[in-house]
Amino acid sequence: MEGAGHWPQYSISQTLAEVNKFLLVSMAVALSPATTTLRLIKPLSAAALRRLSLFHKPKTLLSISLPPFSSTSSSAAASVPLSRRTFCSVISSSITSGEATKTETLEKKVGEFRKKIKIVDIKGGPDEGLNLLGETVVVRGWVRTLRVQRSVTFIEVNDGSCLSNMQCVMGSDAEGYDQVESGLISTGASAWIQGTIVSSQGSKQKIELKVEKLTTIGKSDPSFPIQKKRVSREFLRTKAHLRPRTNTFGAVARVRNALAYATHRFFQENGFVWISSPIVTASDCEGAGEQFCVTTLKLASLQVNAIPKTEDGLIDWSQDFFCKPAFLTVSGQLNAEAYATALSDVYTFGPTFRAENSNTSRHLAEFWMIEPELAFADLDDDMACAAAYLQYVVEYVLENCKEDMDFFNTWIEKGIIKRLSDVVEKKFVQLTYTDAVELLLKAKKKFEFPVQWGCDLQSEHERYITEEEFGGCPVIIRDYPKEIKAFYMRQNDDGKTVAAMDMLVPRVGELIGGSQREERLDYLEERLDELKLNKESYWWYLDLRRYGSVPHAGFGLGFERLVQFATGIENIRDAIPFPRAPGSAEF
Amino acid sequence: MEGAGHWPQYSISQTLAEVNKFLLVSMAVALSPATTTLRLIKPLSAAALRRLSLFHKPKTLLSISLPPFSSTSSSAAASVPLSRRTFCSVISSSITSGEATKTETLEKKVGEFRKKIKIVDIKGGPDEGLNLLGETVVVRGWVRTLRVQRSVTFIEVNDGSCLSNMQCVMGSDAEGYDQVESGLISTGASAWIQGTIVSSQGSKQKIELKVEKLTTIGKSDPSFPIQKKRVSREFLRTKAHLRPRTNTFGAVARVRNALAYATHRFFQENGFVWISSPIVTASDCEGAGEQFCVTTLKLASLQVNAIPKTEDGLIDWSQDFFCKPAFLTVSGQLNAEAYATALSDVYTFGPTFRAENSNTSRHLAEFWMIEPELAFADLDDDMACAAAYLQYVVEYVLENCKEDMDFFNTWIEKGIIKRLSDVVEKKFVQLTYTDAVELLLKAKKKFEFPVQWGCDLQSEHERYITEEEFGGCPVIIRDYPKEIKAFYMRQNDDGKTVAAMDMLVPRVGELIGGSQREERLDYLEERLDELKLNKESYWWYLDLRRYGSVPHAGFGLGFERLVQFATGIENIRDAIPFPRAPGSAEF
Repeated sequence: MEGAGHWPQYSISQTLAEVNKFLLVSMAVALSPATTTLRLIKPLSAAALRRLSLFHKPKTLLSISLPPFSSTSSSAAASVPLSRRTFCSVISSSITSGEATKTETLEKKVGEFRKKIKIVDIKGGPDEGLNLLGETVVVRGWVRTLRVQRSVTFIEVNDGSCLSNMQCVMGSDAEGYDQVESGLISTGASAWIQGTIVSSQGSKQKIELKVEKLTTIGKSDPSFPIQKKRVSREFLRTKAHLRPRTNTFGAVARVRNALAYATHRFFQENGFVWISSPIVTASDCEGAGEQFCVTTLKLASLQVNAIPKTEDGLIDWSQDFFCKPAFLTVSGQLNAEAYATALSDVYTFGPTFRAENSNTSRHLAEFWMIEPELAFADLDDDMACAAAYLQYVVEYVLENCKEDMDFFNTWIEKGIIKRLSDVVEKKFVQLTYTDAVELLLKAKKKFEFPVQWGCDLQSEHERYITEEEFGGCPVIIRDYPKEIKAFYMRQNDDGKTVAAMDMLVPRVGELIGGSQREERLDYLEERLDELKLNKESYWWYLDLRRYGSVPHAGFGLGFERLVQFATGIENIRDAIPFPRAPGSAEF
Repeated sequence: MEGAGHWPQYSISQTLAEVNKFLLVSMAVALSPATTTLRLIKPLSAAALRRLSLFHKPKTLLSISLPPFSSTSSSAAASVPLSRRTFCSVISSSITSGEATKTETLEKKVGEFRKKIKIVDIKGGPDEGLNLLGETVVVRGWVRTLRVQRSVTFIEVNDGSCLSNMQCVMGSDAEGYDQVESGLISTGASAWIQGTIVSSQGSKQKIELKVEKLTTIGKSDPSFPIQKKRVSREFLRTKAHLRPRTNTFGAVARVRNALAYATHRFFQENGFVWISSPIVTASDCEGAGEQFCVTTLKLASLQVNAIPKTEDGLIDWSQDFFCKPAFLTVSGQLNAEAYATALSDVYTFGPTFRAENSNTSRHLAEFWMIEPELAFADLDDDMACAAAYLQYVVEYVLENCKEDMDFFNTWIEKGIIKRLSDVVEKKFVQLTYTDAVELLLKAKKKFEFPVQWGCDLQSEHERYITEEEFGGCPVIIRDYPKEIKAFYMRQNDDGKTVAAMDMLVPRVGELIGGSQREERLDYLEERLDELKLNKESYWWYLDLRRYGSVPHAGFGLGFERLVQFATGIENIRDAIPFPRAPGSAEF
């Protein structure tokens, strides 16, 4: 264990007690209802923060000046040729987070894990760090910009915990200033910076860090592609491994995370059980049209002629992993229905796949879906659940990602906060498909696609209804013609429509699609026959109607659409860390 | 909308106010730290529950007796031939959950969503329902067993919200008793039952439901495969769509859900950002040996000879969706590293795949993985995080799934609660691989596989260490020989070992594997060369070391192994809803 022997033995009971208190408080705050007015989490008391920051700094770091860049740990240096120049220059134990209580090499117990103190903990409180004036803290992160002025140098450091950088102000007398002079500290480099919190002269932040000591952790090669000059989002897609280091993609990642967590919270609080629906399926239910095939036949290295085949020249699937053709799932709904008819209310949250060859800003080949399924529920329950869900997650993000949302409001979509607040505050409207068609026919607007009863609504129609007709309020359209909807949707008493619903939201159009499911075995079998679907392959789905069938309903939500809706990001490929689309599956 | 006009117009403000209060309380309780001593969630006040239960019952249901089984809604009856006998006999609006506030057909607003009241809400409180004596409630669920005695009939109903059934006691004078007599109410059928909570004569429960009225929702065909007689878990795997209706699989589903939610809570509370790592990847990094290939070439319907090929006889990948061979991911770690070196701390929680042709009780072709990645962290931090994580989720399950854990303790693995409590209470032990080998060499036990420095530890060795040498305490073994570990693990100063760690737990053996990652570019490149891996395909992974590299560490945890560990379930195929293994991808 490198350098473990250098760790000083502090008596730490007092600090630990306060840390524990902090963790309890922050846990309670983090878990309080979404209506909390706190910006992020309650910051540590100044004293605890100081003790924490200092506690895990090895004495060596305080007392000796590490040589710049070429430095390695003393013990590592022994086994590494001196000419080697590693990009990561400081031994890890001197700059790690201090989460684990360090133990001696011979000590047999695993150390205690402690929440890492980040920039959000310093600046994220209601007074944006002013409560910490005069305190000594350590910041670890990546250099965003460097401005060398005559008397001082400004270094903006970001650790990804929030949008804000920590502005570090460094005089030429501070320890480690030689690393600034030598060019080690450049955009993209990582650094360990210790300093004192002082109030900031600038208007952008309330506090800044007066640097006492700086250590370069890893330098940044001059080829670093994300320099200060603005780079296009198209370019950044080719650098998907580095783009989270930008303001936009950092903010998207944090909001995406908040939406995911809020999703789990909403369903868990309402008694739903998370179910993992299968990803690979040999079930014929889905119609293999737009599905990806999954195989272990060594296609990448095999001659086509060597692929095992049957007498009729088709692939011999008995030699494949699943002994038959298998596909990536397009939806977990049918599986969720099986669990809903046992556990009452369930939801899935997992990846789904469409092999549509469409290179649009609205489609991904791989995307995450949320699919709740409610037993003993009808379409009204379903709509109510969908509306409550959307309001919950949007409110959660507005409350918990204020800084990121301000950023989107300023730079990505002006007015997005107002648009989202409307969603939280307004009662959602519902109208039937038939009424919607009538409304569109009466509209004074010219549509590219003409409307008539029985046609599928186009995005232009959907956006007209929610944006213009109902002034930005989400609208649920229900009771669609059965011909344009899936086989499993429950037939209404009129014999023409099904209990389907689509939720339309401003800007995105359809965000959620759901339905009450056909729970009557005879109706369902008749519908399968009408559509010439193979009843045999639906044997287990039909079983759910054969044994204790119950009215049930559910909906599906494309998670990346939700991220687009909540951030204003235009291209769906920027709403997921590593997008998959025709021709692109890198990283 | 079926039957909407029948809904009575109650003045509901008082009930709603109380419901809101309940939701706030239950939310706070559900979110309180895992140390809460509450069994499940605080039940509703008796008065609120009564009002809720009654509120959404249509007057028709209270005043008229529905004809048995063949009944359909009056409006549906008009359009359906009378000879049709549907399995689901009651119109949905009469038995739905009452979540949505019902709206008139012409009303334009979407109803309010309300938490559904389930058996767990009635029986899950600290007094197991005694606080509701004398109250009228409605239960909706599936019939588990039926015992007809001379004077009364006992119907056990389960709704999946908890292990407990509601014992319903029905006299022959109760409304709907004809449905019992006619055999409609049988194992597997779904029913709507209204009654009064009375104290139970039986020793198994404190309360039971004195039935006032029963309505069959969906009958169960006599072929229902899960009758009372015990069925094997092997058999149930062929009925994966129905097995969640058994005690064992219902309990597994709830504990699995609790483990998943606890996972999110642990990481969110500690400032980690959830990242969705890609599922399909054309990145060559992983080594395609045990990977599934993903393609849109129409393999299932195409003659082998018609598969597009290049001049040298190989498949012409330019005609495939991603324009090159693509695979299902085996790990999200490398992608997580990209985000950790931007956002500091991240975790993945998603499906991963191994095409190993091993039909064991420990392997799945498709399984869920949790992979946290910590920046500015070393192996000590990593071990501390892994230990804290495991203790958190285990404690969460012990506190929040008491009834299910009692079931596992009695029926699946005697002593499991003690085993798990030990994990929560004991400090985890750590020792080096070298010390572990020495310890094994000194052991008085004969091992099937002999031990020597440099060999991989077998399950028998791992279990000996954690179960016998350290008496059931989890043990972390660290600093493994680099030859038996992955290329990305950080080389220790001795030049022979890497900063890897495996956490061993009783009964399961290795549960978690992790490491500090090699953050030094030159070391990493050298290692890739040594292993003859293609550096080109790692370009983006190496970039993370080129631009602001930082010490970082992480670990991986197979979620189904965790479910096995926490439930005692022996076969991993019973720890996931729809298991995938060689030859089996049904459902």
